[in-house]
Amino acid sequence: MNNYKVVLEYDGTSYHGFAKQEIKGTIQDVLEETLSNILKENITINGSGRTDTKVHALGQVINFNTTRDISEYGLLKALNSNLPKDIVAKSVKKVDNNFHARYSAKSKTYMYIINDKKLSAFCRNYECFCKYNLDIIKMQSAIKLFEGKHDFKSYMSTGSSIRDTVRTITKASICEKNDKIYIEFTGDGFLYNQVRIMVGTLIEIGRGKITEDVIIESFKNYNRNKLGKTADPQGLYLKKVEY
Amino acid sequence: MNNYKVVLEYDGTSYHGFAKQEIKGTIQDVLEETLSNILKENITINGSGRTDTKVHALGQVINFNTTRDISEYGLLKALNSNLPKDIVAKSVKKVDNNFHARYSAKSKTYMYIINDKKLSAFCRNYECFCKYNLDIIKMQSAIKLFEGKHDFKSYMSTGSSIRDTVRTITKASICEKNDKIYIEFTGDGFLYNQVRIMVGTLIEIGRGKITEDVIIESFKNYNRNKLGKTADPQGLYLKKVEY
Repeated sequence: MNNYKVVLEYDGTSYHGFAKQEIKGTIQDVLEETLSNILKENITINGSGRTDTKVHALGQVINFNTTRDISEYGLLKALNSNLPKDIVAKSVKKVDNNFHARYSAKSKTYMYIINDKKLSAFCRNYECFCKYNLDIIKMQSAIKLFEGKHDFKSYMSTGSSIRDTVRTITKASICEKNDKIYIEFTGDGFLYNQVRIMVGTLIEIGRGKITEDVIIESFKNYNRNKLGKTADPQGLYLKKVEY
Repeated sequence: MNNYKVVLEYDGTSYHGFAKQEIKGTIQDVLEETLSNILKENITINGSGRTDTKVHALGQVINFNTTRDISEYGLLKALNSNLPKDIVAKSVKKVDNNFHARYSAKSKTYMYIINDKKLSAFCRNYECFCKYNLDIIKMQSAIKLFEGKHDFKSYMSTGSSIRDTVRTITKASICEKNDKIYIEFTGDGFLYNQVRIMVGTLIEIGRGKITEDVIIESFKNYNRNKLGKTADPQGLYLKKVEY
C-alpha cells in the first residue's frame, strides 16, 4: 500500500465546499473521481479539514492510500491534466503510511482578503468588499487579542456539536498591500466558522461600531451576539497546513 | 437631451462578448437593460468597440443619450447597485452632445497577460497559460516591429469585411512582473482579432518556433499562415480608450 500526500490550490466558487455530502459537486467528489480514474481503483481521500462553499485554498492537503505505484511527478502531471482548471495540484509526495492529512496536522494558516477601497469586477469571488473605510490601526491592535489559548465557544456557528472549544492561535496579523487588507491566523485548529466570525468582528472594530473590548469579554461571557457577523466566504483561503 | 459617458470595467467570462447580437447575454444587453430600468426610458448605448466572449475590460467606454437629468454621482451609484457584480462602472460624466464613444475615440490600449510559470486555479479566466518557457528578450525585440503604420491585413480574422486594413500602432511593449508577462499595444484602432494574432505570433517567437522576421515579411506578403495562432481570449483586456 502506498500513501500519497497532495498539496492543492482551488477556487471554491463553483463547489459545494470541500467535504463530501449528500449533494454532489464537492471538491472531494472531484478529487476522488479523478484519482480513481487515473489509478483505476476506488480512491478515498482524507482532507486536512473542510472548507465551505466559495472558500478557497492555496495549500489544502490531502492523502490517500493506493495499491498502485506511480511516480510523484507522474501523478502530479496526470492530476493537472485531468482535474478541472479551478483545482490545481501543487505537489505530490509519497509519505510514510502513518501520515494522515487531518490527524497529523500540527497547525493551519488561514488568510482573509478585504477590499474597502473600490469595487472590482474581477475580485468579486476572491475577496470581501466592504463599503466602509476600515481603521487598520484599530484592527491591528484588536487582532493581537486573539493570540494565545482561549475558549472560542462564542466564535462557533450554532449547531456545531464540538465539545472542546479551546484553541490556540499562535499568530494573528493584519497588513495592507495594494489597497487590500490581508488578515492571517495560524493555530492548532479552528472551530466551524471561527475565522469568519473573528474577521467579522475585526470589520466591526475597524468601522468603529464596537471596540476591541468585545474580544476580551467574549472569552469570559461567551456572548456571540456582541461579536460581528460571520464574514463572507469568498474572502477566505486555507493557506497552509503544517505537519 | 443629455449625453453621458461611462467608463466600465468588466469580467467577460460569462458574457457573449460586448456587442448585441442574436443571442442574448451580451454586456450591451445588460447595460441597456440596467440603464433603461434606472432612467425609466429606453436607452441604447454606443460602445467604443467590441470585445469578444471571455475578453475583459478595464476601461471600456460607452455613451448614451437620455431625456433624463441625473447627477453623475447618482448615476454611478445607481449603476453599481443594479449591475451584476462582474460589471463595474468606474466613472460617469455628462459630456458634449457631439461625443460618441466609438467615433470620437483617438486611441485604444489593449493589455494581454501570459503566464508561462505555473498553473493557477484562480487566474484561469484572467490570463493565458503557456506551458513553454518564453524568451522575453526575443519577444521584446520582435514587438517593436509592430510599431508604426502598417497594413495589418494578415492579422485579421478571415471573414471580416473591413477594406482599409492599415493601422498605426503608437506603442507596443512587453514586461515581466510577478512571474507574468504583460503585453500592451496602443494604436488608432485594431482589426478584428489583430491583438490576439499579434500576441499568438509573439508567443511562437518567444518559444523559438519562428523568428521575428515573420513580422517583417507579414507586412509584405500578407501570409497569415506564417504567423502564430490567435491567442486565447481570456488573457485580453481593453485597458483604455483615449479621446
